[in-house]
Amino acid sequence: MRETVSLEEIYSPVSHRLSQVPESIFDILSTPNELAREVIRHFFSRPGKYLRPALTFFGASVENHGNLPTAREEKLLRLAAAFEIFHSATLIHDDIIDSAYLRRNIPTINVKWNPQVAVLVGDYLHDKAIGAVFSIEEPRVTSLFLQTAGVVCDGEIHELREKNNFNLKEEEYFEIVRKKTASLISCCIESGAILARLEAEKVEALKRFGFAFGMAFQIVDDCLDFMGEEHEFGKTLGADCEAGVLTLPLIRLIQLVDESTKSEVFKIFKADFDTGRFGFLKNLLGEYGALEYAMGRAREFTDRARLELSIFPDASSQRSLTSLLDYVLERNR
Amino acid sequence: MRETVSLEEIYSPVSHRLSQVPESIFDILSTPNELAREVIRHFFSRPGKYLRPALTFFGASVENHGNLPTAREEKLLRLAAAFEIFHSATLIHDDIIDSAYLRRNIPTINVKWNPQVAVLVGDYLHDKAIGAVFSIEEPRVTSLFLQTAGVVCDGEIHELREKNNFNLKEEEYFEIVRKKTASLISCCIESGAILARLEAEKVEALKRFGFAFGMAFQIVDDCLDFMGEEHEFGKTLGADCEAGVLTLPLIRLIQLVDESTKSEVFKIFKADFDTGRFGFLKNLLGEYGALEYAMGRAREFTDRARLELSIFPDASSQRSLTSLLDYVLERNR
Repeated sequence: MRETVSLEEIYSPVSHRLSQVPESIFDILSTPNELAREVIRHFFSRPGKYLRPALTFFGASVENHGNLPTAREEKLLRLAAAFEIFHSATLIHDDIIDSAYLRRNIPTINVKWNPQVAVLVGDYLHDKAIGAVFSIEEPRVTSLFLQTAGVVCDGEIHELREKNNFNLKEEEYFEIVRKKTASLISCCIESGAILARLEAEKVEALKRFGFAFGMAFQIVDDCLDFMGEEHEFGKTLGADCEAGVLTLPLIRLIQLVDESTKSEVFKIFKADFDTGRFGFLKNLLGEYGALEYAMGRAREFTDRARLELSIFPDASSQRSLTSLLDYVLERNR
Repeated sequence: MRETVSLEEIYSPVSHRLSQVPESIFDILSTPNELAREVIRHFFSRPGKYLRPALTFFGASVENHGNLPTAREEKLLRLAAAFEIFHSATLIHDDIIDSAYLRRNIPTINVKWNPQVAVLVGDYLHDKAIGAVFSIEEPRVTSLFLQTAGVVCDGEIHELREKNNFNLKEEEYFEIVRKKTASLISCCIESGAILARLEAEKVEALKRFGFAFGMAFQIVDDCLDFMGEEHEFGKTLGADCEAGVLTLPLIRLIQLVDESTKSEVFKIFKADFDTGRFGFLKNLLGEYGALEYAMGRAREFTDRARLELSIFPDASSQRSLTSLLDYVLERNR
């Protein structure tokens, strides 16, 4: 049995950079506005996995083990922090949309304050992130990032449009995931590679790695919504389902069950959500192997991502990216 | 008695440019996303006053009566459209925050669809506006605009923090207005001037004109919330007050009334809002000259703005800006 490597170990080649990200985030977001400051402090009191900053750094170090020239090293840090801020802005707006009450085990902004505050603080983070990316004066990165921001938002609107659509097709689900999640993850690692001045071919390989990795990451995330314990996952279990968002495990289940079970599932999907109904659904997902199926699809994406790494020498960052692919499939939060 | 000049007449020196703005807006916002397209079509089916595009054009033509070189003329159009889109994004999010049900005499997005759609479509417009500004490749303008976007958002959060604060001071109200409204209006005219390559001194004068004009514009807007007919104004009358936002007329009234009347006003401010209570408040505002006072403060700002125009020759655009100052004070919607 393979030993699960911790995220900390995987991040070790870039840990010196990652340790500076929180300070950079607070620096970019510093404001005399008391309410904004208080909300920002609350939100970032529980940092996430820093996956986007880490990938930005890996993009820059997969071929370059030492540091970049100082000026570019500073740009890289600012960029990584900006991506985390942008991602946070989308989470804050997502939590309004899903009426979620927990994020990283603490109350969401829409609950602790109200949705209005969440709208505006999300906007504020969004603006500051874009401002920070622009300020590093790398037009190619800014252009990529602005395009990506539009795609992420398009993906979110697409997901919202398909809310409560019990007949959502797999292909459409993948399209939504590509836009709302994989595009930003890919943008992070590609931007790091651009800053490190990698050859075009290698930048492209990392961009594709990012897309495949991002797909796997989101599919697993969607599986976790049906698995594990609420306090462990740190957000509201079953939240997608309750919000009427159909994800891959459920799409698969609906493909497999007979008409009468399908209408049972439909009732659970449409009805007010409770623990009993959710338990029944979890049992069905297990019985029909729907979660295993979804995890299998995720594995296909990690396999595809792994192939992209073959052109890089077997250095520490490359090994980390490989471990990260294993981690994504094995994580429980 | 001075004859009121229509907005159409005032805009005439830039009308050839303004007529191209709607097409440019739809071009920037074009998307295969059906829901986004439908919402965008709804929102822009009733164009606003196009004040921000008009000021962008005036900034570019106050010294330059003909067209700019073609490439820059195209940039100018794109910029004007981007500013209108950005402004629209803030309106869409504002309407969520104020729970407004009418905008330009048609249902708001949060009412016709839901607040979730409004959050995301606002984000989408926001991203597209920033992308369009970046795409014209005028770093000075992009930098100014991104900074302004942050200030606008800061102003909105500031306003939200002071919601239901019955003791809001005039100075703080002015600070909020400067950030949430005047900064963007000033950014528009300054950006136009930058694109027309005006001398630094003149760019600064137009920037200050924009700030003073923007202050007057918002103060009058806040007065109109207590005046006129609902269908005429095109948004929900008394909406600020109902949302717990204290504006200049009310701040003035609270300064003037005795303690017992003050507690009456406080009750209206805190209580559920109805037409009867709103009528009583309107009478009080009239009795104490609070609206006249606020309009007087607005006039001080238009006077200040007028002074900034003295360095420009008495050409048509300069005359238009002067008429615009009169218009702001006399408008009823």
